[in-house]
Amino acid sequence: MKHHQFAHVNVPLEQKICELKQIGFLNHDVKRTEELNELWLLFLNQALPQYLTKSAKQVQLKTFLATAELDLLSYLEQKTVDLHTFYNVGLQLLLFRPGVDFKLSDPLSAMERLGLYHAEKLTTHTDLLGAWYDLLCTQTRLGQTLLDHLAGLGYFTKFYDLPAIKKPLFFNGKAQPIFDTSKLIYEVVYIESDLDTDEDGHCDLLRAEIIRPKETEHGLKVPVLYTASPYHQGTNDDDGKKLLHPANVALQHKTPTTTSKPTFLRSKPKKAPQKRTVMGRSTRAEETFGRETSYSLNDYFLARGFAVVYAAGIGTKGSDGLRTCGDPAETSSTIAIIEWLTGKRKAFTNRTENIELKAWWCNKKVAMTGKSYLGTLAIAAATTGVAGLETIIAEAAISSWYDYYRAGGLVVFPDGFIGEDADVLAQECLSMKQDFAKYREVRSLWKEKRAQLTQELDEASGNYNAFWEARNYLNDACQIKCDLVLIHGLNDQNVKPKNPYQLLEQVADLPVAKKVILHQGEHIYINNLASLDLTDMLNLWLSHKLYGLDNQAKEYLPDLLVQQNTAPDAWITPSTWGSAKKQIFTLTSNNELSKTAKQPLTEKMSFADHLDQATFAHYTNDLAKWHTDLVANKAPLSANSLHFVTETLTSPLTINGVAKLKVFVASSADHGLLSAMLVDLGEAKRLQKKPTLLAAKALNSGFRWRVDDLVGFTYGPTTPYQIISKGHINLQNRTAPWQNDELFPGTFYDVELSFQPTFYTVPKGRKLALIIYATDLSATLRGNEALTYTLADAPNHLILPLE
Amino acid sequence: MKHHQFAHVNVPLEQKICELKQIGFLNHDVKRTEELNELWLLFLNQALPQYLTKSAKQVQLKTFLATAELDLLSYLEQKTVDLHTFYNVGLQLLLFRPGVDFKLSDPLSAMERLGLYHAEKLTTHTDLLGAWYDLLCTQTRLGQTLLDHLAGLGYFTKFYDLPAIKKPLFFNGKAQPIFDTSKLIYEVVYIESDLDTDEDGHCDLLRAEIIRPKETEHGLKVPVLYTASPYHQGTNDDDGKKLLHPANVALQHKTPTTTSKPTFLRSKPKKAPQKRTVMGRSTRAEETFGRETSYSLNDYFLARGFAVVYAAGIGTKGSDGLRTCGDPAETSSTIAIIEWLTGKRKAFTNRTENIELKAWWCNKKVAMTGKSYLGTLAIAAATTGVAGLETIIAEAAISSWYDYYRAGGLVVFPDGFIGEDADVLAQECLSMKQDFAKYREVRSLWKEKRAQLTQELDEASGNYNAFWEARNYLNDACQIKCDLVLIHGLNDQNVKPKNPYQLLEQVADLPVAKKVILHQGEHIYINNLASLDLTDMLNLWLSHKLYGLDNQAKEYLPDLLVQQNTAPDAWITPSTWGSAKKQIFTLTSNNELSKTAKQPLTEKMSFADHLDQATFAHYTNDLAKWHTDLVANKAPLSANSLHFVTETLTSPLTINGVAKLKVFVASSADHGLLSAMLVDLGEAKRLQKKPTLLAAKALNSGFRWRVDDLVGFTYGPTTPYQIISKGHINLQNRTAPWQNDELFPGTFYDVELSFQPTFYTVPKGRKLALIIYATDLSATLRGNEALTYTLADAPNHLILPLE
Repeated sequence: MKHHQFAHVNVPLEQKICELKQIGFLNHDVKRTEELNELWLLFLNQALPQYLTKSAKQVQLKTFLATAELDLLSYLEQKTVDLHTFYNVGLQLLLFRPGVDFKLSDPLSAMERLGLYHAEKLTTHTDLLGAWYDLLCTQTRLGQTLLDHLAGLGYFTKFYDLPAIKKPLFFNGKAQPIFDTSKLIYEVVYIESDLDTDEDGHCDLLRAEIIRPKETEHGLKVPVLYTASPYHQGTNDDDGKKLLHPANVALQHKTPTTTSKPTFLRSKPKKAPQKRTVMGRSTRAEETFGRETSYSLNDYFLARGFAVVYAAGIGTKGSDGLRTCGDPAETSSTIAIIEWLTGKRKAFTNRTENIELKAWWCNKKVAMTGKSYLGTLAIAAATTGVAGLETIIAEAAISSWYDYYRAGGLVVFPDGFIGEDADVLAQECLSMKQDFAKYREVRSLWKEKRAQLTQELDEASGNYNAFWEARNYLNDACQIKCDLVLIHGLNDQNVKPKNPYQLLEQVADLPVAKKVILHQGEHIYINNLASLDLTDMLNLWLSHKLYGLDNQAKEYLPDLLVQQNTAPDAWITPSTWGSAKKQIFTLTSNNELSKTAKQPLTEKMSFADHLDQATFAHYTNDLAKWHTDLVANKAPLSANSLHFVTETLTSPLTINGVAKLKVFVASSADHGLLSAMLVDLGEAKRLQKKPTLLAAKALNSGFRWRVDDLVGFTYGPTTPYQIISKGHINLQNRTAPWQNDELFPGTFYDVELSFQPTFYTVPKGRKLALIIYATDLSATLRGNEALTYTLADAPNHLILPLE
Repeated sequence: MKHHQFAHVNVPLEQKICELKQIGFLNHDVKRTEELNELWLLFLNQALPQYLTKSAKQVQLKTFLATAELDLLSYLEQKTVDLHTFYNVGLQLLLFRPGVDFKLSDPLSAMERLGLYHAEKLTTHTDLLGAWYDLLCTQTRLGQTLLDHLAGLGYFTKFYDLPAIKKPLFFNGKAQPIFDTSKLIYEVVYIESDLDTDEDGHCDLLRAEIIRPKETEHGLKVPVLYTASPYHQGTNDDDGKKLLHPANVALQHKTPTTTSKPTFLRSKPKKAPQKRTVMGRSTRAEETFGRETSYSLNDYFLARGFAVVYAAGIGTKGSDGLRTCGDPAETSSTIAIIEWLTGKRKAFTNRTENIELKAWWCNKKVAMTGKSYLGTLAIAAATTGVAGLETIIAEAAISSWYDYYRAGGLVVFPDGFIGEDADVLAQECLSMKQDFAKYREVRSLWKEKRAQLTQELDEASGNYNAFWEARNYLNDACQIKCDLVLIHGLNDQNVKPKNPYQLLEQVADLPVAKKVILHQGEHIYINNLASLDLTDMLNLWLSHKLYGLDNQAKEYLPDLLVQQNTAPDAWITPSTWGSAKKQIFTLTSNNELSKTAKQPLTEKMSFADHLDQATFAHYTNDLAKWHTDLVANKAPLSANSLHFVTETLTSPLTINGVAKLKVFVASSADHGLLSAMLVDLGEAKRLQKKPTLLAAKALNSGFRWRVDDLVGFTYGPTTPYQIISKGHINLQNRTAPWQNDELFPGTFYDVELSFQPTFYTVPKGRKLALIIYATDLSATLRGNEALTYTLADAPNHLILPLE
């Protein structure tokens, strides 16, 4: 396993000395006359905070090997220290094992292999000071810096009682866990929005859960990590299951529309009812809570001088209103929390007495965090340009809901959620249903509203329309004022990579930072990944953005960081996602993808789209098998697809960006769809898309605070293939997803299908395959009609953006 | 989901009133003149501890539905309360949802369906007091009692500062979480054993990690939950992988031995070196620790006035000595901790200064907890009769190591650990290897010792010998003085059910309590299971055993509790495990299992044991497929097995205990083995052996303390079969596992094979199958020899113990 540390900042020696003093590692000015060895011992003893006496520390020092021959305590008697011995011991402090992870005869080469920084010489006091400082910044075998590891053993408890005014404390540009998490304050407020989505004549109140350090009671103003999560107060899973739309439904012919792009009128927000009259003021909340549903990244920052706020939004338990799933009302409900935190909106201590409570403890700087719907609301909030939102860290987030539930004029279900649509999600998140008496009051209105959602999302057509326009955050991307951190899995088939890709296109010219991290996982968090110091990076980032620390965060965080698919722990920093360099492959009659062939197909090629009922049922119940058999070109699926394969690659081929398929195609009916996938072919061990558990509960967020599992991407068993990317299009949406083109049976049309953006290397010795088919049992509607599709004997091309 | 609450104790009204006062729910003597309704409101307000003001509580009361028409606040204005309304609200407090989990028009029938207690009438103050008391004892939808749920919201924080002398606090026979877990004291001591397993001339010191309530500093003496876990300080997984024994090895002919049982001399423990001279005394530890590897059941008790001690034993990091895997030295190292806790052994503050530290905070009562190896060491400790060990809660524990790594003269690997043996496990647990400099001193001795283990365990013969005799806790079962709680999965193929079964046989006549819980899972903990209040049961048990509370625990905990395999949440209390009622089935020539046929096979029946290399490799890499194809009698496995099947059952058949197969069989060689499995045949949905996640982090161990996931057994997809039980025997061990009988090729011998004990119901409409085969690819050595086995045309029987 190789460690990648992007948040280890190179600082001048004077600063190192100053910071070592600040965190208590150095308690005096180092003199030239001092034994180097004594200084080292001072550091070593500090690095054993769990041993409380000199004797106990000495026993422990005796368990370390300084060299192959000498234990550390014996070595220290020699009154010396050299570079190798320093790192032999350093590596053991970092939990690496001599004889397993490194050789005592050569620690430095192991450090290079492991990706760990080391100094080049260790002869002077300044060498030792610098090397020790950097050792504290270096990751242990269990994926936290040594200093964070020591914090987990209690190193920083002596800072708990520092005066609030002396907090927070930064080291190497990052806030340190000097806040006593057993003293955190948990409180609930009700924020008054401008909305009245439940139409009761009162502005919807929104419940927010706040966790803040006790030092805020003594004058410290803290920034906020705000996670907007519609799931936070529970979900109605059973309701959701009942509402799923049928998926085994045939595509219908759509009446052709005019070719000009329609104007999607964006409905004006309704005028808000009159605001509540403030009847009093308080500085104390009247409600607390037990254990919130937490995100471990937030937990980490709670030990470091940041507050955390969770809010679930309109229509959730404790709040007023109804769910609208992705529309401007939801966005407005999302930013209302920020407006309160920054002093621009009122909140109350409870729902009836109108006693105002201000966020008097907040420094008015907010970052948003979270994955999936949570990250989506962070993007939504960013597009409002709301003041005080300094940055968002949006993981696996949606940038346009059309690209979550639809594609190219087709229903395309998110991976694993066959039959789900925006109305289903709205119902699932309507946790205010569990405020039983309150729900009774709005039940019939909600049924109307939900029916309206169902109608407007228009699953029958699959087209982009006013419903989706209202849920397309890209429309307002130009208003973004905060810096963006976007993290996404290149194998995320739930929220697909198009979502961050198109957002990045929209904001390319905006004067905000864009920090993008693309990993090889699916729909997951990666803050607990062993090979990347993401948590440290985000600490560097948020210490800068929210506490104004001048720590070179913008320079140290790469603009684009990509995990390669060819090794478990290879992170690279390409210049752009989306290469301008294109390579055209021609589809040939002998099923090749050819760089050199220029001629069209010598004859038409057809494929069917029907399966007998038993086979259809078998495959819809086992989608993994369907994928495997489809890629293997196994009957009967071989009749339902066309396969084009490159020669065995003699050098690696890296696809960076959006691949396109251009074909001249006909359907046997007046409706039809095209699906295509790019496949890496060849028996090989490949990275698994779900990380493997490396060490349970190994990541301490602070001291005796919450823990997270350490995970890492690892190779799975040998597989014959991996799907690189897919694309889907309705043949009637050749021009645009909002436009119905004509489609006559048997007539050929030019169709361009875009694949999901990717960053994927097909290694040499393997092949790239293009598979063209129609119904995607794992994603599209599955009418199982007896249709035939035909590629014309004309030029048909695959165009790849190559790195 | 049905709730099963065995720990809800029925107590007299006076006691209920007294306890309600003690926990602060009742603050006055109830008068006849008091409005019933007012008393109820008092309770309701207390049940909303997260709402800190009257207004905030009122808002919340308004979200409950009292009836289909009225919210609770409005209902309360009516100055009344009736039985239905009480439980309508009660169910909502218990997190059940009107309209989903129950009907407001009839809460009582839902409570009966859900397994929840309810009163029969509610007309007087005493009715209300009783009903409220019992409601606090009733499980919420998320599997904790209402009182524990309220504790998770902060109910008991007001008790944190009670004088130590007033603690602990019991309610309904169970200790309550009134201890502030943020103030727990974490300390390390080094206990001096009588052992010198590393042969350095000094008694091995054993590291123990202690967590105790801060109240112990103020006079409270607390009992201990002690978990002995060789894994606690880490493991050497890579070493273990390298040491795995080859499994694809042919069985060898064993030279016949004499028929009398050999005497296995149990080596006397070596004389211990002289003990250390005490150089001083202290009441304070010199070492602490950060976050221990915890067991959530222990966490729960830490909030309730119990200390927890973890120790890893000889040869682990921080301790002296070498691993011996299951032998008397390990047992001695295990009980040394108890001897220190009870004042009979010395411990020191560190490893060098000989400063003695007593367990002055302990009430000298200890229970042991833990699963697998952890539970095994609890059994080991119990068999010493060590004073102070009041009870063990041994989950999925080994009672004889022969029955973990061997069976019937054969190597039989634990499920999922092909190639593992006791020497491998010893190496994996030798975490003292990570005290690098210390390990260097013992490395060569350890290599000798491990080689000795490898030799003595004698994998080549598979026989029971002196090595296994030394690791057979049953030999000393007669010395057990503590009460036993044994919890085991009937589908545990790692530590197999024979382990608790034979221990129970051994202790049947001992004057100790035997509480047995058999579940349908595999090798898992079940303290977080939704359908059973195991945690409450163990609280009742330990409050009684360790705090001496007279709470009827022995009567309330069933002696035998069995989860049925025919429903997700059916727990029954049969009188015995192992029915005396036997049913003989005859194996017939037309592959039937017949209750009525008496005649022998009309002709011999043979099966082979060889697979071509590709098939062999395929199946050894996919053991699930091998099982499925074997049960399906699919070629080529059909040639390698004999199948006998009952008629379709017209009534359910419950096997309770040890089934036996008696056959007259020949091998084509001078060696051979027989395997057999009992199979429940027929397409059906069956319980999955791994519970499903029902609610992440839903189980609070206290208030803002550690959390656990709520899980439940659920049905999986339809499957064609389930394996009920297996058995294996070496044909040369027909008499006993320690004796080699002769085996001539082609000669028939009477062989009796015992299956693993089970408790399994084959429902009506399905069939019971017996499959006889030889090599078990998932368990035995896999020589893949071209052997043939033949059943003689003689009576061959299956004998089932039927419930």
